[in-house]
Amino acid sequence: MAAVLGHNQYGKAENRVVRVFRGRDPHELVDYNVSVALSGGQEAAHLTGDNSAVLPTDTQKNTVYALATEDDAVAQPESFGIRLARHFVDTTEPITWARVKLDMYPWSRLGDSPHAFARDGGHVRTATVTYDGSATRVVSGVRDLVLLKTTGSEFWGYLEDRFTTLQPTTDRILATALVAQWLHTSEAVDWGRSHDTVLAALTGVFAGHHSLALQHTLYEMGSAVLAGQPEIAEIRFSAPNKHHFAYDLARFGLENDNEVFHADDRPYGLIEATVRGDDAPDPAGAFDPGQGW
Amino acid sequence: MAAVLGHNQYGKAENRVVRVFRGRDPHELVDYNVSVALSGGQEAAHLTGDNSAVLPTDTQKNTVYALATEDDAVAQPESFGIRLARHFVDTTEPITWARVKLDMYPWSRLGDSPHAFARDGGHVRTATVTYDGSATRVVSGVRDLVLLKTTGSEFWGYLEDRFTTLQPTTDRILATALVAQWLHTSEAVDWGRSHDTVLAALTGVFAGHHSLALQHTLYEMGSAVLAGQPEIAEIRFSAPNKHHFAYDLARFGLENDNEVFHADDRPYGLIEATVRGDDAPDPAGAFDPGQGW
Amino acid sequence: MAAVLGHNQYGKAENRVVRVFRGRDPHELVDYNVSVALSGGQEAAHLTGDNSAVLPTDTQKNTVYALATEDDAVAQPESFGIRLARHFVDTTEPITWARVKLDMYPWSRLGDSPHAFARDGGHVRTATVTYDGSATRVVSGVRDLVLLKTTGSEFWGYLEDRFTTLQPTTDRILATALVAQWLHTSEAVDWGRSHDTVLAALTGVFAGHHSLALQHTLYEMGSAVLAGQPEIAEIRFSAPNKHHFAYDLARFGLENDNEVFHADDRPYGLIEATVRGDDAPDPAGAFDPGQGW
Amino acid sequence: MAAVLGHNQYGKAENRVVRVFRGRDPHELVDYNVSVALSGGQEAAHLTGDNSAVLPTDTQKNTVYALATEDDAVAQPESFGIRLARHFVDTTEPITWARVKLDMYPWSRLGDSPHAFARDGGHVRTATVTYDGSATRVVSGVRDLVLLKTTGSEFWGYLEDRFTTLQPTTDRILATALVAQWLHTSEAVDWGRSHDTVLAALTGVFAGHHSLALQHTLYEMGSAVLAGQPEIAEIRFSAPNKHHFAYDLARFGLENDNEVFHADDRPYGLIEATVRGDDAPDPAGAFDPGQGW
Repeated sequence: MAAVLGHNQYGKAENRVVRVFRGRDPHELVDYNVSVALSGGQEAAHLTGDNSAVLPTDTQKNTVYALATEDDAVAQPESFGIRLARHFVDTTEPITWARVKLDMYPWSRLGDSPHAFARDGGHVRTATVTYDGSATRVVSGVRDLVLLKTTGSEFWGYLEDRFTTLQPTTDRILATALVAQWLHTSEAVDWGRSHDTVLAALTGVFAGHHSLALQHTLYEMGSAVLAGQPEIAEIRFSAPNKHHFAYDLARFGLENDNEVFHADDRPYGLIEATVRGDDAPDPAGAFDPGQGW
Repeated sequence: MAAVLGHNQYGKAENRVVRVFRGRDPHELVDYNVSVALSGGQEAAHLTGDNSAVLPTDTQKNTVYALATEDDAVAQPESFGIRLARHFVDTTEPITWARVKLDMYPWSRLGDSPHAFARDGGHVRTATVTYDGSATRVVSGVRDLVLLKTTGSEFWGYLEDRFTTLQPTTDRILATALVAQWLHTSEAVDWGRSHDTVLAALTGVFAGHHSLALQHTLYEMGSAVLAGQPEIAEIRFSAPNKHHFAYDLARFGLENDNEVFHADDRPYGLIEATVRGDDAPDPAGAFDPGQGW
Repeated sequence: MAAVLGHNQYGKAENRVVRVFRGRDPHELVDYNVSVALSGGQEAAHLTGDNSAVLPTDTQKNTVYALATEDDAVAQPESFGIRLARHFVDTTEPITWARVKLDMYPWSRLGDSPHAFARDGGHVRTATVTYDGSATRVVSGVRDLVLLKTTGSEFWGYLEDRFTTLQPTTDRILATALVAQWLHTSEAVDWGRSHDTVLAALTGVFAGHHSLALQHTLYEMGSAVLAGQPEIAEIRFSAPNKHHFAYDLARFGLENDNEVFHADDRPYGLIEATVRGDDAPDPAGAFDPGQGW
Repeated sequence: MAAVLGHNQYGKAENRVVRVFRGRDPHELVDYNVSVALSGGQEAAHLTGDNSAVLPTDTQKNTVYALATEDDAVAQPESFGIRLARHFVDTTEPITWARVKLDMYPWSRLGDSPHAFARDGGHVRTATVTYDGSATRVVSGVRDLVLLKTTGSEFWGYLEDRFTTLQPTTDRILATALVAQWLHTSEAVDWGRSHDTVLAALTGVFAGHHSLALQHTLYEMGSAVLAGQPEIAEIRFSAPNKHHFAYDLARFGLENDNEVFHADDRPYGLIEATVRGDDAPDPAGAFDPGQGW
């Protein structure tokens, strides 16, 4: 057996780019964490340390900041990812594949100030763009979307075995810190509007759906997203079941009718599911495997 | 020289209590991280392991969850802290001093749902209540309040020495993740309304003030808070100067008129200041020393 | 287009199990973070909320702690993962696939104490075991292995483009926080000894190899691991290039011959590579995709 | 009531300095996180934005890296802190007070390599140096020292009240992630040797002492440190009681004689104690208030 080089990729991770649009009144800004990964032609660097096909990660960093000057590209995480991924593959001879992952941190204007903002901590918008010289795959997403409902959630009728001690319930708190990623089949998308529409579908189902299991809720969320935007081929969820345990106060002669809870840290359930169109294309490595799967 | 026991305190830290008000329509909830510390009469436990004056931290935990059933107490972090601190000192013989620290995580209702919520990640509301059997000291606060302004901030005219390389600027991004704590002189306070008023003063000054230094801005913020609520005796700030460096794009023939920034992590400036009324009482250990100082 | 359920899995994540061997003199212990994921027969739970094929994650938790009583299984992360994965698939009717991921936190005995330990923070040992009812795939690994060499590392001769500003160097600090995972082709392995052998190979190459690029070093590390243990089919690395920048002290008339460095946080290079035997089998989903890829 | 400026301080926090001693064979290195805070003469900066007495935090950063060239100063965290604190106060007119806090990350040589190292993750060594133009106060410390004993720990005989549910025990796991800080009365100290001696005393008592409460163990640790090094005036501990709960396996017909534990996250006990010489001087603000108190 001889050792050979398998899949490899390299890039500059976590470039923290803030772009201000000072020409606009009031000012606007976008705030990104951009990670680049490239592949193609890197055998010599690995085998002999010949770096002649290596575009240094330092150069990739400079490129990210330089292309952030382009107003149209930088305005949305998906368009900025597309711009960067194509730049690297199309202009750098040995590079045949690029993936750009972006986190976008939302900010809110402070009152009617023309230039002051507060960071919205509620969730992070994400994008993963993959380009191989011909096909561009765009995945949008969200993470750290923390949702909770105080009722409207049951869990019973499950398998029992020797190690079962859980009591069935017809009323519990359901809470999660949702990670979701969805694959587009088109680039002719208003990325901001599409993102808002998906978010509204996810939170609308979470609030309105009567849940018999977190799995049940995720599937309903995914179906609503696909129904609302047919160009979305597939959506993947990774949803921790953030357990809220009703505290046993009967020991102290106190009633606790699902009012006082301990929010536990670990362990937690982790429910992961895909909902896809029955004619959806093979996603072929478009999703970020680090986000939950 | 003989060894003696100095200051000591003990308690249960980070009780994660979620209290739902199911009797209300729509449902409401409060979400706390509660830490208790007690002192008094603990010499024997330290010197000989005689625990007869020790109220176990497990019992303290049970107490936190039990008193969370009391609607009036639990509704605000300050009132819950007062209720708990007095309970421990007033009902437990050897205990002479209690401090209760609370983080409160804000949630927003999802649309008009009667029972579904999304966590607001924007900032955490805090309270520190200290009680010694007679005086109760109440400190309210906020942390992780991330603010940024894209202009309206200068920094120049500073001391120079052998190691000075910084260039003066008349236009820079100013950004911070503010920690603030303020001491009340009264308990006859509508805690929720008072908190909102302080927050509005802090963010209003940040947005509207023309800043010549972060120190300058903090002092103005503090003055505004004291002017607006005379019962507040003193406010303390711990404010990282979250540096945003304009990226040097001239090397690539590109203009960067304060539009493309690198948001740096470390090191960062850390500006800490107190603003107090000229007749304010000695705060005497009321502030949480772990929050910035 | 109709919505259909795609890949799904669920389980209890981050069970923090500490197992003490009290019957041994001196005492021994293992300290794990165990995450279980199961698949098979979960359509009804998603589509209609019928949970009759769901083994609750609470039951999975109980099982993890119950099987931790078995001395032989629990002693090594790989053997505990195998025991658990097979248990779930082989004893639970609808379950057809299980993945068990384990972190193992190393501890050192305090002196010659029979029962006191200090946690070694140096790195975390990992294992990922996947079982589908017939094949068992065992991947061992390490993460947070922070390595640094003060010389013996060059980087030059790379591609240049419009955005290149990096200066070539023939002497730099090389540092990384290594994540590595390797796939076994056998279960007849002394897991503890094998792990130590891999670690010695990785650190030995890192120390002794003259590096022309981090890619160059990773490939050499991987080759050494495969050469030393032919039953290892493939090894994957995810290696941040933790940049240490020589601080420009010439501005102050001070010399800095690669002695004073700023350890930067972000962005960082991220170098990822696979080294495999030329006749290695398809790893077929054996690797944990969340560890770097 | 008029607003006035109270205590204020400012500085550059978290300068990540790595200093390599390349002139030595084999190479040596120290790895610090250095935070500087200065006070004195800052009224105008706060009240009017007049920065003429402000030494910019950027200049402070340059100073930290510049003085890291001095071999004797940089070798130990205490000596580096002394060097920096005195530099700022003694050479900068308005500055009258300086505090320098340092984290030191330990590294181990890889085998007998002359230039390769692995980071020891076990604990962080700390120092806090405060200087007011005349007195220099040096506090050494450690944090994240994670210790566990599998037996030799009891807890019983405590106060009981209405909310007591804890069962007394004569055998439990005792575990903590120790934070300790101790104040020196001399600078004529071999800092490295002194640190090793304290660490040996702390871990030796933890291992050998039969504990009736974590308070009991902390006091014994502190007494041992003071007995061993009379120049140490006072030591402060902040010790989370990291609960390990024996898992209830009797429900499954399995025995669990203190062998299988769940390591819980939150809440946790937090035990804080001071041990001091009966003739020790007033520590007068020498301790870092952010480390546990």
